[in-house]
Amino acid sequence: MNGADALISTLVANEVTACFANPGTSEMQFVAALDGVPAMRPVLCQFEGVATGAADGYGRIAEKPACTLLHLGPGYGNGVANLHNARRAFTPIVNVIGDHATYHRQYDAPLNSDIATLVKPNSIWAKSADSPDAVAGLAAEAVAASYGPPGGPVSLILPADSAWLPAKGEPVIAQKPVRPAPAGSAIEAAAKAIKAAKNPVVLIGGQACLAPALKAPARLQAAGVTVYADTFVARQQRGAGAFAPKRMQYFGEAALAELAGVDLMVFAGTAMPVAFFAYPDRPSVLVPEGCSTLTLSERSEDSALGLDALADALGAPKEGPVQPQTLPDAAPSGQLNAYHVGASIARHMPEGAIVCDDAVTSGAGVAAAAATARPHEVLALTGGAIGIGLPLAIGAAVAAPDRKVLSLNGDGAAMYTVQALWTMARENLDVTVVVFANYTYRILNIEMMRTGAGEAGPSARKLLDLGDPNIDWVPLAKGLGLPAVSCSTGEDFEKAFAGAMAQKGPMFIEARI
Amino acid sequence: MNGADALISTLVANEVTACFANPGTSEMQFVAALDGVPAMRPVLCQFEGVATGAADGYGRIAEKPACTLLHLGPGYGNGVANLHNARRAFTPIVNVIGDHATYHRQYDAPLNSDIATLVKPNSIWAKSADSPDAVAGLAAEAVAASYGPPGGPVSLILPADSAWLPAKGEPVIAQKPVRPAPAGSAIEAAAKAIKAAKNPVVLIGGQACLAPALKAPARLQAAGVTVYADTFVARQQRGAGAFAPKRMQYFGEAALAELAGVDLMVFAGTAMPVAFFAYPDRPSVLVPEGCSTLTLSERSEDSALGLDALADALGAPKEGPVQPQTLPDAAPSGQLNAYHVGASIARHMPEGAIVCDDAVTSGAGVAAAAATARPHEVLALTGGAIGIGLPLAIGAAVAAPDRKVLSLNGDGAAMYTVQALWTMARENLDVTVVVFANYTYRILNIEMMRTGAGEAGPSARKLLDLGDPNIDWVPLAKGLGLPAVSCSTGEDFEKAFAGAMAQKGPMFIEARI
Repeated sequence: MNGADALISTLVANEVTACFANPGTSEMQFVAALDGVPAMRPVLCQFEGVATGAADGYGRIAEKPACTLLHLGPGYGNGVANLHNARRAFTPIVNVIGDHATYHRQYDAPLNSDIATLVKPNSIWAKSADSPDAVAGLAAEAVAASYGPPGGPVSLILPADSAWLPAKGEPVIAQKPVRPAPAGSAIEAAAKAIKAAKNPVVLIGGQACLAPALKAPARLQAAGVTVYADTFVARQQRGAGAFAPKRMQYFGEAALAELAGVDLMVFAGTAMPVAFFAYPDRPSVLVPEGCSTLTLSERSEDSALGLDALADALGAPKEGPVQPQTLPDAAPSGQLNAYHVGASIARHMPEGAIVCDDAVTSGAGVAAAAATARPHEVLALTGGAIGIGLPLAIGAAVAAPDRKVLSLNGDGAAMYTVQALWTMARENLDVTVVVFANYTYRILNIEMMRTGAGEAGPSARKLLDLGDPNIDWVPLAKGLGLPAVSCSTGEDFEKAFAGAMAQKGPMFIEARI
Repeated sequence: MNGADALISTLVANEVTACFANPGTSEMQFVAALDGVPAMRPVLCQFEGVATGAADGYGRIAEKPACTLLHLGPGYGNGVANLHNARRAFTPIVNVIGDHATYHRQYDAPLNSDIATLVKPNSIWAKSADSPDAVAGLAAEAVAASYGPPGGPVSLILPADSAWLPAKGEPVIAQKPVRPAPAGSAIEAAAKAIKAAKNPVVLIGGQACLAPALKAPARLQAAGVTVYADTFVARQQRGAGAFAPKRMQYFGEAALAELAGVDLMVFAGTAMPVAFFAYPDRPSVLVPEGCSTLTLSERSEDSALGLDALADALGAPKEGPVQPQTLPDAAPSGQLNAYHVGASIARHMPEGAIVCDDAVTSGAGVAAAAATARPHEVLALTGGAIGIGLPLAIGAAVAAPDRKVLSLNGDGAAMYTVQALWTMARENLDVTVVVFANYTYRILNIEMMRTGAGEAGPSARKLLDLGDPNIDWVPLAKGLGLPAVSCSTGEDFEKAFAGAMAQKGPMFIEARI
């Protein structure tokens, strides 16, 4: 048994059983060791941003970490953007980053770099296993650390000699941390403040948006408290049977207009809401003037318990409102738009579907129609780094092979990690990909106005528009191994989407809107 | 005039006239300001690794920096791998990284991250312009810093409010640093040691491999000194009329076997050679036992001057050997292999072509045949992070619109930054792309053996092979806007490549080997 064997044994002993990988020479011992531990499923990604985004999707659904296998600093670098998103989703991920042999580092070979510094901004724990006997213990520590609470990506640097030298045999088991309940005093304070307020709001996020946890904020709503959820939630139960909190609006001034008159905001599993971006003469903090704020539960605490206790303290009914199931009667028709897409999705998406949402400006049409669709879950873009919708779907599908996964993507977003399509084909994942092809970074055309930057001239337009040439998505997807179809009308989309839902396996749909 | 205007004016005043960009909301002021300064050419890349790799190619050919425009930490993160390569190529690049407005950073909005730490490992200079009046001065400082010597990527963080607030008007001009000549004592010591040695070697790298500089090591060769070049050189003159130093072998044991008996190694514009990777029981340092080493010139110094002075001190002839022009007579035929590809390239590549080499194991066939082809330059993968061959070609083509650019790529390498094909189409760049499709990370199959990891079993093979499904490159490239053709025989390739050389504009060739 060498260090690599010890690492994989310990990971599997701690229920880490999926590895999203793009290895290089320094990771060959890890690759070889996989053959000895068939419980670890290796999934090749032809770009590391696919691997880290897939690990995020896996962690959100499996509620345990996957590992990634990345090739030194540059391999990790390619994964940074989606690890940023994972950090903002509080998703447990164990990144295994191969490095040069410990004695080789001093020579500053071409692939050498300062990995320890590079991983800092997006790791909630980071260590280097500088001897083979340290590997198993640090792997267990890494898994435990990834759970937080709240969870996040951790980085275990694995020098090549720590992988190839003999190591002690026994896997180390990590203690999985427990989310503490919020303090009784916080619950009492929140109950008291809500009773005293004229127009109180509870803002929920994170773990409070999961299916069982949503029952508690529903009770608060029934007791007359308005409940909002964060704009972008890592994983949220939606559709029939689930409580539907309002959603904090994306644009700050719209959010504040909606919150006008609110005199108390209580945060559960989230923090004070702030604008996604700053703009000249627009607010950063999305709390109305004169409104008090209070924290019921930190992100690290058990918000479901806290919200339930708060509902009890307020004498709320035992059950709150949930969404009815109302599917659009009519199939869409005519020139395709985002609302047509939403209608077809709402009509045909099966119960238990997982929607990975990187649709940017095209997402609203789906969210509206799907609000009363069959029960499903939505994984949102938590960190603002587009290019996660395809990788997330890979991870979700590996974590939940019996559930249908939808990946909704803006065309600009999909291009960031387009390599993901190949992994879907290879692993025959049950993912239906929709790319909204509008041939522009549409959000940036809006933001250009909002930042006061003025009308785009010829140079600026070159950086906002994705046309000239328009990407032809069907041959692109077919080249990467997926069956693919293009739709320009509601009728086409309805037929393509219904067909995709009726079969198992990957399918690509270009929605020309 | 606002901070963004001041930034672009200062960049242009310092001859920074190309911007490889993937902007977001926080960069909208920069984007808008481009319309006021038409001398700055904006080039949209649908992924930041394309932008940074293109800036590397541009900087190597133009011998001045391009700027990139990147969206906060995640945008920079996507560019890290190719910035690692650029750092190892010592290429001047000015990265402009948009950030939240200074007053908005404290709220830790979703896209917030520790950019200052993230940029450290791959920046030779990094500052944040935290007020609009600081922008122009820091931009000039950034340009100057990027030149080194030796050069490298620098990071200028641009908070949104520093871009949108009014700023002082005058562009600031940077002093371009000069490479110092090596010390006379270093030249004397090298001459003395070479005279005393039985079997001396001079190892050259970096700037010593440019066309005019190569005349000096050729003189050393004529004087009986064996001259080697680094394995991977940022930019090297090759083919007819150029001196062809030997190349340090990639595998350490092969390099040492070749150097057996060498008793002196003198380094000019490079450092002591080390193995690319460590392996169990194989050497890290590629200097034979008992061999002395000496530095003639540091990377920061003018190695051309130093080598010429050394040649004078040794009484070397005024001219050294250069390569003859010998093109393969016969067009290749039969089932395609890497040597066929090399033969066709050698037959048809025009004088002045720029070859961007990310061909990994398929590159040897081209290098062998091209050694006596028409005069050309080769840009190699300096940092080992594959995925640079396509972006490099974009930058080289923008820097030298009158030269034919060849981009040679392994299929695994090409997938990392496949988005680059779209930018080639949009900008109508005169680039011929060759992808060697062997459907495997072939180098890793070799490395697996060398690391002693043993035979690949089913799990390991899943991470080494790129088949199942094979990528179909022609529809993929066509979907991204390029004319494309697939070749399986020498005859096919000869015809396709000759055709590509006879026209101007982008062309994609899949070489199935």
